[in-house]
Amino acid sequence: MALLRLAIRATDETASMDIPTFEDVLKAHERIAPYIHRTPVMTSSYLNQLTGAEIFFKCENLQKVGAFKARGASNAVFGLSDEEAKRGVATHSSGNHAGALSFAAALRGIDATVVMPHNAPAAKKAAVRSYGGKIIECEPTQAAREATLEQLVAESGADVVHPYDDPRVIAGQATCVLELHQQCEALDAVVAPIGGGGLISGTCLALSTLAPEIRIYAAEPAAADDAYRSFHAGEIVTRDAQQSVADGLKTNLRPRTWHFVSKFVSDVLLASENEILDAMYLTWERMKIIIEPSSAVPLAVMLKNRQLFEGQRVGIIITGGNVDLKHCPGCK
Amino acid sequence: MALLRLAIRATDETASMDIPTFEDVLKAHERIAPYIHRTPVMTSSYLNQLTGAEIFFKCENLQKVGAFKARGASNAVFGLSDEEAKRGVATHSSGNHAGALSFAAALRGIDATVVMPHNAPAAKKAAVRSYGGKIIECEPTQAAREATLEQLVAESGADVVHPYDDPRVIAGQATCVLELHQQCEALDAVVAPIGGGGLISGTCLALSTLAPEIRIYAAEPAAADDAYRSFHAGEIVTRDAQQSVADGLKTNLRPRTWHFVSKFVSDVLLASENEILDAMYLTWERMKIIIEPSSAVPLAVMLKNRQLFEGQRVGIIITGGNVDLKHCPGCK
Repeated sequence: MALLRLAIRATDETASMDIPTFEDVLKAHERIAPYIHRTPVMTSSYLNQLTGAEIFFKCENLQKVGAFKARGASNAVFGLSDEEAKRGVATHSSGNHAGALSFAAALRGIDATVVMPHNAPAAKKAAVRSYGGKIIECEPTQAAREATLEQLVAESGADVVHPYDDPRVIAGQATCVLELHQQCEALDAVVAPIGGGGLISGTCLALSTLAPEIRIYAAEPAAADDAYRSFHAGEIVTRDAQQSVADGLKTNLRPRTWHFVSKFVSDVLLASENEILDAMYLTWERMKIIIEPSSAVPLAVMLKNRQLFEGQRVGIIITGGNVDLKHCPGCK
Repeated sequence: MALLRLAIRATDETASMDIPTFEDVLKAHERIAPYIHRTPVMTSSYLNQLTGAEIFFKCENLQKVGAFKARGASNAVFGLSDEEAKRGVATHSSGNHAGALSFAAALRGIDATVVMPHNAPAAKKAAVRSYGGKIIECEPTQAAREATLEQLVAESGADVVHPYDDPRVIAGQATCVLELHQQCEALDAVVAPIGGGGLISGTCLALSTLAPEIRIYAAEPAAADDAYRSFHAGEIVTRDAQQSVADGLKTNLRPRTWHFVSKFVSDVLLASENEILDAMYLTWERMKIIIEPSSAVPLAVMLKNRQLFEGQRVGIIITGGNVDLKHCPGCK
């Protein structure tokens, strides 16, 4: 019954939503290729031993701006006509998307304006400024963010690039698993973190055409489990003011990302805050790469759901490496 | 005058020393290829901007056992005859060489025994045990280490593989720059850390034949500056009980490594403890890779000697990534 309701809802909603296609993913990959890295895939015999699986880590921590967000932002910015581009781009974000949009706009030589709560971490503000982005501060509420952005856009005519609820962004993020699929043959499953669902949606979009036999798991902090609750309720469940050490994953699904999650995700798996930090430091220690807490959720859920992945070839998307080392979360 | 004295000393000493040749390097590379990684070379546009140079980082932190030491140890272990190998290998070391020798011995299926001071860090002991090495503890003095090792060898007949004062080890470490030279064309300089001088000796050995026009710089902690003092005195100057956050670089040169340093190194450049830690965290933050303090000394000296490297193509050997994250040195 839940599944049926789900199917009906998805059909209803998608009628009024702009859902990107696989063709959009291929176009995005071609469009952004000059501006992003084709990131390497790494392996670790130690972590293979520990999980009983063969894991392929797609290292988007080594991506431009230190996160996969460079893909979606570049696709949006370089897909604009010259006329549209002139008016610049804008968003509200206090995370990697803010830096990524500023980065892409600078490459195209246009303005990027980012609405940020005045209490956003100094490191995030510095990242935006380092790429030439302009910051407009607002009160730290969702309403203030949206009102400030609206006013800004009314004045400048800037194109709003949402961090995840945007077909251009989803198609851009999809290029990550497109590459992973080219780099690693015969994967059995892919595990990626879920926040607002942009990356998972892109992953579903690409794999449902390329290799529908590959299972897709969304890995989520138990402390910010709106996707888990939505998955089990069969409809979007939102949670206010979610807090997690995985600061990129506190956002809620929206109809456009729920469309993909509800249709193509095999399961949403949860990890506790401590499990996330343990998996993060384990990766630092054993793989010698810096990954941010959000990126550690997939390994954390693999470690606690060994039976799901044992003996299989599993792709993990390491989403980013932007950790403020001065305020290292739970640093031991 | 100093140079003349140097030349005479070198000739005197090498007559009685077993100095490896370039042919030994090629043989070593072939011998160890099945057991080690051909590590990637990474770049960072940010660090290029900061230094004004084009830097190519040879990432031995991604090597087996997390350090270039896997090369020299594997070369020594796999160069033994079956008869010699049966009696096992032994060393005294409290650093990466201990783990590397245990790793190589395990691959060959022979015993490795490591003499370690009883106060050596638990993490280092754990690394040796994780590769199946056997630890013999002793008092934390050089005399106790050597006496314990001597007694052990008298009983077992094990082959002693010194961490750096061993021609097989130097030839093995030389394979690192051999690969770097294949991976990056037309380098102007290579900068590598110096402790006992095994890696620098290997670097000199390989480049003096392959590409003598490439300048070689040794990067040393100012707090453990025996190589710097030796270089300027024109003869080996040893310092007791050197202490540095770059714990792999506290050892002194020996005649065999001084042979290479005195003949082929352009300069020994120093960095303070704070400069080393700043360069380490800068690399973590910007390159998203974990490097140990010793590995940060080359970048630290490049940052303070900008004029030496500006506009040039410079190779840096990232020697290892074994940091005890539980006791992160100077963690901010």
